[in-house]
Amino acid sequence: MIEERLKQIQMVLLDADGVLTAGEIIYADSGEQFKIFNAKDGVGIRMLKAAGIQVGIVTGRSGEALRHRCTNLGIDLIFDGIRNKVQSLDQALARTGLTAAATAFVGDDLPDLAIMKKVGLAVAVADAHESVRDVAHLITRANGGRGAVREVCDTILKAQGRWDEIAQKLFHG
Amino acid sequence: MIEERLKQIQMVLLDADGVLTAGEIIYADSGEQFKIFNAKDGVGIRMLKAAGIQVGIVTGRSGEALRHRCTNLGIDLIFDGIRNKVQSLDQALARTGLTAAATAFVGDDLPDLAIMKKVGLAVAVADAHESVRDVAHLITRANGGRGAVREVCDTILKAQGRWDEIAQKLFHG
Amino acid sequence: MIEERLKQIQMVLLDADGVLTAGEIIYADSGEQFKIFNAKDGVGIRMLKAAGIQVGIVTGRSGEALRHRCTNLGIDLIFDGIRNKVQSLDQALARTGLTAAATAFVGDDLPDLAIMKKVGLAVAVADAHESVRDVAHLITRANGGRGAVREVCDTILKAQGRWDEIAQKLFHG
Amino acid sequence: MIEERLKQIQMVLLDADGVLTAGEIIYADSGEQFKIFNAKDGVGIRMLKAAGIQVGIVTGRSGEALRHRCTNLGIDLIFDGIRNKVQSLDQALARTGLTAAATAFVGDDLPDLAIMKKVGLAVAVADAHESVRDVAHLITRANGGRGAVREVCDTILKAQGRWDEIAQKLFHG
Repeated sequence: MIEERLKQIQMVLLDADGVLTAGEIIYADSGEQFKIFNAKDGVGIRMLKAAGIQVGIVTGRSGEALRHRCTNLGIDLIFDGIRNKVQSLDQALARTGLTAAATAFVGDDLPDLAIMKKVGLAVAVADAHESVRDVAHLITRANGGRGAVREVCDTILKAQGRWDEIAQKLFHG
Repeated sequence: MIEERLKQIQMVLLDADGVLTAGEIIYADSGEQFKIFNAKDGVGIRMLKAAGIQVGIVTGRSGEALRHRCTNLGIDLIFDGIRNKVQSLDQALARTGLTAAATAFVGDDLPDLAIMKKVGLAVAVADAHESVRDVAHLITRANGGRGAVREVCDTILKAQGRWDEIAQKLFHG
Repeated sequence: MIEERLKQIQMVLLDADGVLTAGEIIYADSGEQFKIFNAKDGVGIRMLKAAGIQVGIVTGRSGEALRHRCTNLGIDLIFDGIRNKVQSLDQALARTGLTAAATAFVGDDLPDLAIMKKVGLAVAVADAHESVRDVAHLITRANGGRGAVREVCDTILKAQGRWDEIAQKLFHG
Repeated sequence: MIEERLKQIQMVLLDADGVLTAGEIIYADSGEQFKIFNAKDGVGIRMLKAAGIQVGIVTGRSGEALRHRCTNLGIDLIFDGIRNKVQSLDQALARTGLTAAATAFVGDDLPDLAIMKKVGLAVAVADAHESVRDVAHLITRANGGRGAVREVCDTILKAQGRWDEIAQKLFHG
């Protein structure tokens, strides 16, 4: 059944803090903020996009550091500064014309619960809050910011039988 | 007995370095300092405040990075740059009108010992100095900066029977 | 046979993200990027160079932070911003007059696969992607950014019977 | 015998990268460098100084970030940018009038070997290079930058029977 869910995914929505990062909230004395992303996650996101799967960010905290990473990865579906993440899901579905059943969401904490109950594939990172792991269809082996997103990308592409083709195409494997 | 202590808490005071952070003291060549906080701790602090529990910071090191995080979390009880943390406790009690018995303190090192002996609930993070763990009523499973504060927040709210209500209220769980 | 490969190495080419670093992609709000390198790796690279072994960087991401570290280590063979790493290998061989059989490459992810199949010694860091570990002649015990490069340096110099001499020469051991 | 060595210590010299830090060499695109120190180590250094034990830094890399931390900790014995650390030991002994037998050095890598063979107490951090652990009188349980220096401070003060007095004096324990 998890295989069925994986096969239907045409869009992956990612929480930022705790999923694309290990949850570090970094401030300088000046007030400037910093984010630590993961290189392997970046390769996975490039592979999803090469397979025609949409990738978006849904986060409760806005910030320029996140936007720089999104620009770097070619992600233009960004919903930030939003307390109610279910609204972001609705916006993402409207913009892409996809269904919730074809959407995966990867989360780690309570603000992710509501959206996780709506999507076709709800993924919790390994170090997600217990209440989030409880509602997930899939729990990654890797922690957030430590390769969890890459693991989701690989898992989806392999379930859809496209991993080898995309790896070959992008990396002349 | 630990349950009784948890039920009485109306204020949580937190050390900064080693509790809200993993103890990193970060300097740039320019002399600017940086602090690495934890996103999950932030959710826990928001939940405490939504439950009407006061949250304050008591630290021996002043710094603007910490103040930015406090602003972000809506914490206005900040006592920093103070060697004698017991004075900070007295100030926090005077400002809030609460008692030491209704106060929890979370610490990790020797400067926290005196205040931990005065409060109703003394918590040591998992990687606290041995002498601090020895005087604690409760030792978290998580290390400082790695979710220890969130664990304290969840534990207090659950002991007070309010966790589900607050999660529902804040996150439409 | 791995000993034979190690003995022939006259040039070591290193991927950057995930090999010289733990894969952190760090952005400030301003868009400035940061890289976290490893001091012990630096000692190993100095030892390789003292032994007359060429050291170069082959990476898919360009960046000034990496260039500062290379300047610091005296590395002038830098091939960055290049999607097809095999072209970088050809350039490195042309510039040094060495053969692929005398070249080692240390990688961690899919963009490294093609070059790893061409060189005399293909090394994967311990936390490399599974597909990279599968094609490696050698897998380090240490993770990328956590001493993996130093381990490769020590291993090569010891296989060539030169470790003691270089340690003595550089550090009056 | 290790107890005898610990009792004689009147000066502690510390390597910086890999001992006071976990060995991170951090560059910004701008070329600015950053260092990550440890709060618990800072408490230990304050305790050593309160006990009248000299504390100094001997490092092969100069840098302003390190100097800021030293100012913060009141350390004015700084020997940096020096390849031959034995010269630094000679300078430290000349400035303090102490003997090598009364001096401890904490190191992690090959550049520390020569000085470690000269001092009364040679300490390796847990994750020191194998060759450094081999010549050490004492190996810490904690890694560099993760409390190794604090462990050395506590061990020396306890061996000298002064830990309780200093903790009491500084922290009204």
